[in-house]
Amino acid sequence: MPRLIVLYNTPEDVDAFEAHYRDVHTPIVSRYPKLRDTRLSKLVGVGGRESSYHLMAEMIFDSAADLDEALASEAGAASAKDLRNFAGAGVSMFIAPDEADA
Amino acid sequence: MPRLIVLYNTPEDVDAFEAHYRDVHTPIVSRYPKLRDTRLSKLVGVGGRESSYHLMAEMIFDSAADLDEALASEAGAASAKDLRNFAGAGVSMFIAPDEADA
Repeated sequence: MPRLIVLYNTPEDVDAFEAHYRDVHTPIVSRYPKLRDTRLSKLVGVGGRESSYHLMAEMIFDSAADLDEALASEAGAASAKDLRNFAGAGVSMFIAPDEADA
Repeated sequence: MPRLIVLYNTPEDVDAFEAHYRDVHTPIVSRYPKLRDTRLSKLVGVGGRESSYHLMAEMIFDSAADLDEALASEAGAASAKDLRNFAGAGVSMFIAPDEADA
């Protein structure tokens, strides 16, 4: 199933970031039409190193059409706009169209 | 289940990258002890933009101990060493310890 993936760089104030994500951003994302599931992962580095990314959010849809609909929705626009309120450390966003077992 | 995630920056020569990944790197990764599953995703950008990442590889394990064992194994060392042979465009690596449904 296609995933919209957002990687958040480690913020200066982790507590403030997480409070905003939980209390403001998550309610916006939950309004995505046809959102099937969300996975949030707090990332850690490999071999004791720090991860430059703090959080990975995976928004999972049944189809590419549903993912595109979410991005084009009011909630999609609102979630993009909200990034400026808490993701100043930087963010990477991409789509994993589907999963191929290797 | 914990995942070892590797993001590959878009290479100059995509065909050469993919041939190396398939023919050399995948056979090494497949030797990871206790590897449960692998997902490979060719990434695309959001809203028509290009993704700076080309490929996301997710190596999935039953436990953090299994993941650590894979990293410490001969295959783990060989796969890290092999990166210099095809991932010169850059690579990001981190661990998603577990999945929390939001």
